[in-house]
Amino acid sequence: MTQRLDQQIAFLNEADKLKTVLRATTLCDGSRAENSGEHSWHLTLYALVLADQASEGVDINRVIKMLILHDLVEIDAGDNPIFDDIDLAAMHAAEQIAADRIFGLLPVDLRDDLRSIWEEFEAAQTPDAQFAKSLDRFQPPMQNLASGGGSWTDYNVSQEMIAARVGSKINIGAPNLWVYAKAKIATFFESHANK
Amino acid sequence: MTQRLDQQIAFLNEADKLKTVLRATTLCDGSRAENSGEHSWHLTLYALVLADQASEGVDINRVIKMLILHDLVEIDAGDNPIFDDIDLAAMHAAEQIAADRIFGLLPVDLRDDLRSIWEEFEAAQTPDAQFAKSLDRFQPPMQNLASGGGSWTDYNVSQEMIAARVGSKINIGAPNLWVYAKAKIATFFESHANK
Repeated sequence: MTQRLDQQIAFLNEADKLKTVLRATTLCDGSRAENSGEHSWHLTLYALVLADQASEGVDINRVIKMLILHDLVEIDAGDNPIFDDIDLAAMHAAEQIAADRIFGLLPVDLRDDLRSIWEEFEAAQTPDAQFAKSLDRFQPPMQNLASGGGSWTDYNVSQEMIAARVGSKINIGAPNLWVYAKAKIATFFESHANK
Repeated sequence: MTQRLDQQIAFLNEADKLKTVLRATTLCDGSRAENSGEHSWHLTLYALVLADQASEGVDINRVIKMLILHDLVEIDAGDNPIFDDIDLAAMHAAEQIAADRIFGLLPVDLRDDLRSIWEEFEAAQTPDAQFAKSLDRFQPPMQNLASGGGSWTDYNVSQEMIAARVGSKINIGAPNLWVYAKAKIATFFESHANK
């Protein structure tokens, strides 16, 4: 028992580092950058609260598991801001190497279970993964609206860029949330332009 | 739909404040205090990884939901370090008032659903709640062992105090985890005493 627990705790202690990975998005009050650990918690709460926005057949418990695990690879591979121009193939390669190392700390049965949940999220082909991905894209604009611009201002982003890089993804798993966000974003940019 | 979503987002934006509530425990590297948002995420990962330590009949998905919600009342009521001497009745009263306000931001159906999950956690009478509570008590000693003392040093805590205030609670829902932690803590205090 002790050896198995030592492996489980080694993984959990390594996961602690996700609390030091900073994202482009700030807290709602704009006081500081959000880290990927607290972001992951916030998304699980989004899933609980917005479960009524998932398509029929989505298993919200599996969505929550994906969201708990979804950013762990950032411990090695870092966070890639959505409005940065990045090399997607290089990012995916780095994330696979990170997943090998980080999930590899676990006992083999758990390693395989949790890795497969993360891979399903990454592939974004199942309804559960698509809803999880939509929430991951929906939370940053809600934070930016609350903080008065946030990463949109930092990256000099237009409504068209938000629609292309964020809206298109929210739309796959949670179309109503994109309708909602799009209207709020339009109002925000109008009032911003008039200042 | 918009009015319901406005209420859901108002709650999620309010929940963002949990990321600014600081705990007595530090990150594993000792670099800073842990906040209650990232702590809540870490506990959901503990539940995923340590599900094999739950008694038969525990529903790990319900445990995870409790852990997502368990600290939200701290936004108003603050975190109470386990080694502080606090007025428990006053704390529970403050947390009830906080729960009224925070869950009260939600549409009524969600308010009642999520509040009842939180109340079950607080009451600690069901196997799901007891396992969730045990994880909440098990994570801080794991962080303290990793950081080289953490809140034990800050609060000048003895092994006996840890057993009384932490071990007794871990033991209810996850007795094997207390056997494991107790041995690690004894080794830590021995090596610390010899320095």
